[in-house]
Amino acid sequence: MAFGYIGSMRTKPGHRDDVVAILTRGQGLREAGCRLYAVGLDPEDQDKIWVSEIWESAQHHADSLQLPETKAAIAEAMPMLTGEFTGQRVEIVGGLGVS
Amino acid sequence: MAFGYIGSMRTKPGHRDDVVAILTRGQGLREAGCRLYAVGLDPEDQDKIWVSEIWESAQHHADSLQLPETKAAIAEAMPMLTGEFTGQRVEIVGGLGVS
Repeated sequence: MAFGYIGSMRTKPGHRDDVVAILTRGQGLREAGCRLYAVGLDPEDQDKIWVSEIWESAQHHADSLQLPETKAAIAEAMPMLTGEFTGQRVEIVGGLGVS
Repeated sequence: MAFGYIGSMRTKPGHRDDVVAILTRGQGLREAGCRLYAVGLDPEDQDKIWVSEIWESAQHHADSLQLPETKAAIAEAMPMLTGEFTGQRVEIVGGLGVS
C-alpha cells in the first residue's frame, strides 16, 4: 500500500525560502520510491512550510532517510528550523494522480 | 500558483470504506483542474480519512465545488460523516510530482 506523509515545519524568521529551496531540490527522491513530494507555504503563517508526500511504501520512506543526499539536506536545513514539526502518516488507498 | 488542500474528515462508525469509494471515484476532477486528489486512511483512527489535493489554482478548487458531480458526491457522503473536518490551505511552490 502506498504510504502518505503530511507534515509541517517551522522555520526561523527569514529562512523559509532557503528551506523551501532545499526541499524542492528533491535529489534522488524518485529513485528512492517517492511519487510525490509537494512543498507548500502556509498562507496564514509566514514561517511555516507544509509537505505532502506519497511513497511506494512506508519502507521506501524509511529507507530514504538513510540516503546521503537526504541526510545532507536535513543537515543543511536543520539550523534554519525551530524544531517545531507536525506529521501525519496516511495509508493511501487511491484517487486522482496517486498511481 | 498551484493550490494545495490537506484535509481530514471523520466518518460515522462502519462507513469509512463507503466514503472512500465516493472520494476515489474522482469524477470530473482532472477536467476541473485538479492534479492530485489522494485519499488515505489514518493508521491510528479507523473512522478518519485524509485527503491531499493539488489544484491549478484556488479558483479552480472553488469552482469545482459548484460542479454537479461534486455536489452529488458531497450529498452522497454527508450522511455518513460526523461533521468533524480539518482543513489546511497550502500555496504549492514546487517539488517532485507537483507539475
